[in-house]
Amino acid sequence: MKKLDAANLKLGIVAGGQLGKMLIQEASKWDIATYVLDADENCPAGSIATQYFKGSHHDFNSVYNFGKQVDVLTYEIESINIDALFKLKEEGLTIVPDPITLQLIQDKGLQKEFYRDHGIPTAPFQLFNNREEIIETVSSGKLSFPFVQKLRKGGYDGRGVLIVNSTSDTDKLFDEPSVIEQKIEIVTEIAVIAARNQQGEVKSFPTVEMVLDSRANLVDKLICPAGIGQQLCNMAESIAINLIDKLGMAGLLAVEFFVDTNGNLIVNEVAPRPHNSGHHTIESVITSQFEQHLRAVLNLPLGSTKLKLPAVMVNLIGEPSHSGPVRYEGLTECMAIEGVKVHLYGKKQTRPFRKMGHATIIATTMEEALAKAEFVQRTLKVKSWKESM
Amino acid sequence: MKKLDAANLKLGIVAGGQLGKMLIQEASKWDIATYVLDADENCPAGSIATQYFKGSHHDFNSVYNFGKQVDVLTYEIESINIDALFKLKEEGLTIVPDPITLQLIQDKGLQKEFYRDHGIPTAPFQLFNNREEIIETVSSGKLSFPFVQKLRKGGYDGRGVLIVNSTSDTDKLFDEPSVIEQKIEIVTEIAVIAARNQQGEVKSFPTVEMVLDSRANLVDKLICPAGIGQQLCNMAESIAINLIDKLGMAGLLAVEFFVDTNGNLIVNEVAPRPHNSGHHTIESVITSQFEQHLRAVLNLPLGSTKLKLPAVMVNLIGEPSHSGPVRYEGLTECMAIEGVKVHLYGKKQTRPFRKMGHATIIATTMEEALAKAEFVQRTLKVKSWKESM
Repeated sequence: MKKLDAANLKLGIVAGGQLGKMLIQEASKWDIATYVLDADENCPAGSIATQYFKGSHHDFNSVYNFGKQVDVLTYEIESINIDALFKLKEEGLTIVPDPITLQLIQDKGLQKEFYRDHGIPTAPFQLFNNREEIIETVSSGKLSFPFVQKLRKGGYDGRGVLIVNSTSDTDKLFDEPSVIEQKIEIVTEIAVIAARNQQGEVKSFPTVEMVLDSRANLVDKLICPAGIGQQLCNMAESIAINLIDKLGMAGLLAVEFFVDTNGNLIVNEVAPRPHNSGHHTIESVITSQFEQHLRAVLNLPLGSTKLKLPAVMVNLIGEPSHSGPVRYEGLTECMAIEGVKVHLYGKKQTRPFRKMGHATIIATTMEEALAKAEFVQRTLKVKSWKESM
Repeated sequence: MKKLDAANLKLGIVAGGQLGKMLIQEASKWDIATYVLDADENCPAGSIATQYFKGSHHDFNSVYNFGKQVDVLTYEIESINIDALFKLKEEGLTIVPDPITLQLIQDKGLQKEFYRDHGIPTAPFQLFNNREEIIETVSSGKLSFPFVQKLRKGGYDGRGVLIVNSTSDTDKLFDEPSVIEQKIEIVTEIAVIAARNQQGEVKSFPTVEMVLDSRANLVDKLICPAGIGQQLCNMAESIAINLIDKLGMAGLLAVEFFVDTNGNLIVNEVAPRPHNSGHHTIESVITSQFEQHLRAVLNLPLGSTKLKLPAVMVNLIGEPSHSGPVRYEGLTECMAIEGVKVHLYGKKQTRPFRKMGHATIIATTMEEALAKAEFVQRTLKVKSWKESM
């Protein structure tokens, strides 16, 4: 195993959102110099990165030139210019996860084929190039309502996903290459983050259960341990470990599952990076997902994923009727409660449903953590100094 | 209570060593902009501060001009130009802890008088202006060996302290204003960090037990909970809380105690800031000492100081025979062990006995944590690329 020479390592991170910021908070504990590429000079990670570079992750030259400055490159977002990554790799740069994995994950069609070919449970699907093909297939009786359309590329946080219940919804179909999946009757959603280093050492974090906010299709509350029984948790963790192994990737893989009405697990989405569903690990697990990501990226032994205390995580998202300079209401009241750990990402402007921060609540029992989380959700509001909408 | 407007607060920190760095790691979670003043542009905190300012904390103009840039000022070192702080305070700047408290603590003579006048247990003492006065007092029979001489000002980490066992040691006496204390027969040393905000809310962290490294007079290992019995811990925590209350200060106060052969507690030294003996709180306590310091400085409700898991902390200090660019030996082996959390401060050069980092070991039992800590101490060595001495 390559030795960590922390005092002289330059770690490049493509994109400087909250994931990049929390990664840097961990990296600074090992004195790793962090370089961040982001189009926005006020991005969350910019304030604590060793060096900030202005540039878009979509742009070949920005990504390529940035990569030439660093010793190891990683990323906190999927929609990166993949050609720049391949050229950097060809020229000898260590990129973790490998661009091959990212390329597969950037395309939901390739992703689904990979699952099918490797025995990973996923919803039945068909691939289409445009809207017309879908409508024809419905007409010919080879596709029936309800189904879900997902853009093969560029979807994020619920964008690029359409639920199609009947003919009247077909007007809204995306006219781009997409995956059509059978609609699953969902009981709940869970997520598992697995990690793998270049030696093939693999570990998974404990399963978390996600509660969605129906208004914004964003995760509203996350609990760990999940309330779905140990057997289902074990199964989800094995599937995540199996998947990261089959991908042969180094890094983190966040795997989101549906639990259907028959108690089956179905892989819904994956992300090759730290993930919203792992934020609670900062306080509740021996190794946080960010530290684990660093370990995987730097090819160090993976850290323990043992839970210290039950945890609930709530996202702090922009109130629907507020846009503009951010103001946090109820912060002091929430900070007064034992076990409430607030993280503000440092986005200067709030927008409806924008992820502005999160709070993790740790407690001796899940009941206590849930009660406190509900207080935080009632009390802590992300508003603006001016109500604008 | 003043509301925290995290998005727009500039926190100034005088000096940018490891304490400043770890304070910034916490401050970044609340998106607080951090300004650091330090003479060394490669100081540990410089790499993650929002803004670094070059200048010495001893220099009036540097401290004064720095203070004019920020909304709230705190510090991570005691030997600051106090006149600059008083002038800033006079001009309306919030400084936490208040310069009045710092002035008292900068002078071990005033400190000792304060303890005596307020019923805080401390070793019997006399004050002297120079060596001659001490020798005369010994001759006249009013002072007997063994005793300890401590410089009233400028001592740090064991420097400025002399143990005087017999007449042959009197040649080494400092010829400056000093405190002479009766030498205490010590069983062990413990420390308690107390916190207080401007509302007068007070909390203490659990007592820690310190094991000294006889080679360097530095803390070698720290255990929490302390192994001295609950009654003595409670007593130490009450004394620390009583002392911070009597001082009427806002901020953190680290109180180091001797436990003598009769089981008495004796206050040895205090520091009005985060302290080496509180590093374990980052992983083992619900609120870390750095978060607590921020809460006290920003006049927020204090956080819970409940211990999550037993912890042992070991300092990573420069090996005696190494000076020059730092190299960490055994890092990977230690990182492989569950519950070993390594912090490297980012000092580029090592020197014999220099504090270069620390490792906290958390485990379900103290026995397990101690065994792992001993492995870390045997394995993790701070060396240089070139052996120079």
